[in-house]
Amino acid sequence: MSDQQTALSSWNEGPTKQSIVNFVRGATTSGGPQWVRPEERIAVFDNDGTLWTEQPMYVQLAFIIDRVKALAHQHPEWKDKQPFKALLDGDLETVFAGGQRALVELVMTTHAGTTTEEFSIIVQDWIASAIHPKFNRPYTELIFKPMLDLLAFLRANGFKTFIVSGGGVEFMRAWAEKVYGIPPEQVIGSSIVTKFDMRGEAPVLTRLPEVEFVDDNDGKPVGINKHIGRRPIAAFGNSDGDLQMLQWTVAGTGSRFALLVHHTDSEREYAYERSPLGKLDKALGEAEAKGWTVVDMKRDWKCVYPFEATNSALFSKS
Amino acid sequence: MSDQQTALSSWNEGPTKQSIVNFVRGATTSGGPQWVRPEERIAVFDNDGTLWTEQPMYVQLAFIIDRVKALAHQHPEWKDKQPFKALLDGDLETVFAGGQRALVELVMTTHAGTTTEEFSIIVQDWIASAIHPKFNRPYTELIFKPMLDLLAFLRANGFKTFIVSGGGVEFMRAWAEKVYGIPPEQVIGSSIVTKFDMRGEAPVLTRLPEVEFVDDNDGKPVGINKHIGRRPIAAFGNSDGDLQMLQWTVAGTGSRFALLVHHTDSEREYAYERSPLGKLDKALGEAEAKGWTVVDMKRDWKCVYPFEATNSALFSKS
Repeated sequence: MSDQQTALSSWNEGPTKQSIVNFVRGATTSGGPQWVRPEERIAVFDNDGTLWTEQPMYVQLAFIIDRVKALAHQHPEWKDKQPFKALLDGDLETVFAGGQRALVELVMTTHAGTTTEEFSIIVQDWIASAIHPKFNRPYTELIFKPMLDLLAFLRANGFKTFIVSGGGVEFMRAWAEKVYGIPPEQVIGSSIVTKFDMRGEAPVLTRLPEVEFVDDNDGKPVGINKHIGRRPIAAFGNSDGDLQMLQWTVAGTGSRFALLVHHTDSEREYAYERSPLGKLDKALGEAEAKGWTVVDMKRDWKCVYPFEATNSALFSKS
Repeated sequence: MSDQQTALSSWNEGPTKQSIVNFVRGATTSGGPQWVRPEERIAVFDNDGTLWTEQPMYVQLAFIIDRVKALAHQHPEWKDKQPFKALLDGDLETVFAGGQRALVELVMTTHAGTTTEEFSIIVQDWIASAIHPKFNRPYTELIFKPMLDLLAFLRANGFKTFIVSGGGVEFMRAWAEKVYGIPPEQVIGSSIVTKFDMRGEAPVLTRLPEVEFVDDNDGKPVGINKHIGRRPIAAFGNSDGDLQMLQWTVAGTGSRFALLVHHTDSEREYAYERSPLGKLDKALGEAEAKGWTVVDMKRDWKCVYPFEATNSALFSKS
């Protein structure tokens, strides 16, 4: 095992950290019974609530709201048309009451109609300026420091790390490399249809208002197979939407690891078992029954965000 | 540039080899005008006719024929039903006359109905035993040695190499890592729908008889965007089915490279501009107009297959 074990420095000592270290030690101990060929060391991570904060709403929903506001002057009809009216009025309850149909309509309106490269720039511009309502910081600072440590620890031990999220794949790819060190080709997510077109002499890919793939629940193992083409040996999630991904991962032969992040820290982050569009219920039951690792955020994490770690480092200098 | 330049040892000296070396030198010369960040060094390769021999028929079609024969005793009705009857009679002309509909039916019959892992084993067993009719060797020995050299040369210079093929993605993934050193997650191809199911306690992915994605022509840049999420800087093909992939690649800013393999060697391989399902016509015209590199197989390649290289090495010892 690489001595990057020290890289798990934001994890408190205890059974949670130990279960991670034991798994990685087994997978990397050449000649041992748990050894895994480096090519097979695939680790998959949910994004919302697993790698960054998903409260009070998915970050991509905040993007949608800001996009609808930005586009509203071109669409005077939205003032009287749901779900746009409710969204512009800040009435998210009515938006959610519209169910999946309303959300899909909002996604299509705000995510289609551009080329892939134009969309990427829209997302990059937005995420550079948008601010989280509770922490007054950019969303990209509200990523979990212990999970960054874990990504680094796995990579130092020969793992290839992937995001497998219900979020839009091109939304995440616009910033995931900079924020998590995960390149676009290792980001798997939900998608809309794109089409090859010529703009004069220039070939472009245009984003169409049509759902292509929903990478959640059953979709996660399907998306993993589609993109990676082999079964991961480690999977990390935080809700029932991740359950099938975790089940699929541990059902393989040889060394396997499954982990759930349980949000138990109402002071440093949030405490909940239910997010706007998901919950943690069945997966927690299965974790208990099968002995999967469950992170108790309050107990297991020395700090939640990178800016806390920086502060501590400053304090410890004095 | 890495001194793996010697790795292009199966390429004859001349403008073709020089154009490859110049491109790679530019992309890897730090501080130079053509320098490309390592993360952006993405190279995409067509498979049939670009990395291995596609004559007298696509290897996957040989697989389909053998699968239909193997399954025929379970389907007595095929004796009187097209396209199965024609295929069992060895009458490929009638099969092709049935157009895409006939081929899709053959693919669905032979590629669906199993789990993903069962299908992978079927392909692995087949490819370990099937023999090419002209060369009397396994198909996996009929890969182009100069292209293996090129893959190694690019990787040694920080490139990530992908297959982007009209062939079935799970057909190729079953052997591409062993044969080309390209892991499953770097193989992009056509696909059928898979579905998450539970078999008792065990989650499985079942392959359904439904086309999901055709990774050819316009589909190639779409597939690249879906899987890689950024534009390659180098693309390699051999037919009009690769044209849009090459156009899409070179339309980006900065250093770019496009190459076509022209099959001009009727002795060592085949000489043709037309394969059973494709042709090299428009792409060759565009290559000429745009100054893309065109490999003249007979002129540019010292040897075609790895077994020739081994023979030469033996000869040169004497």
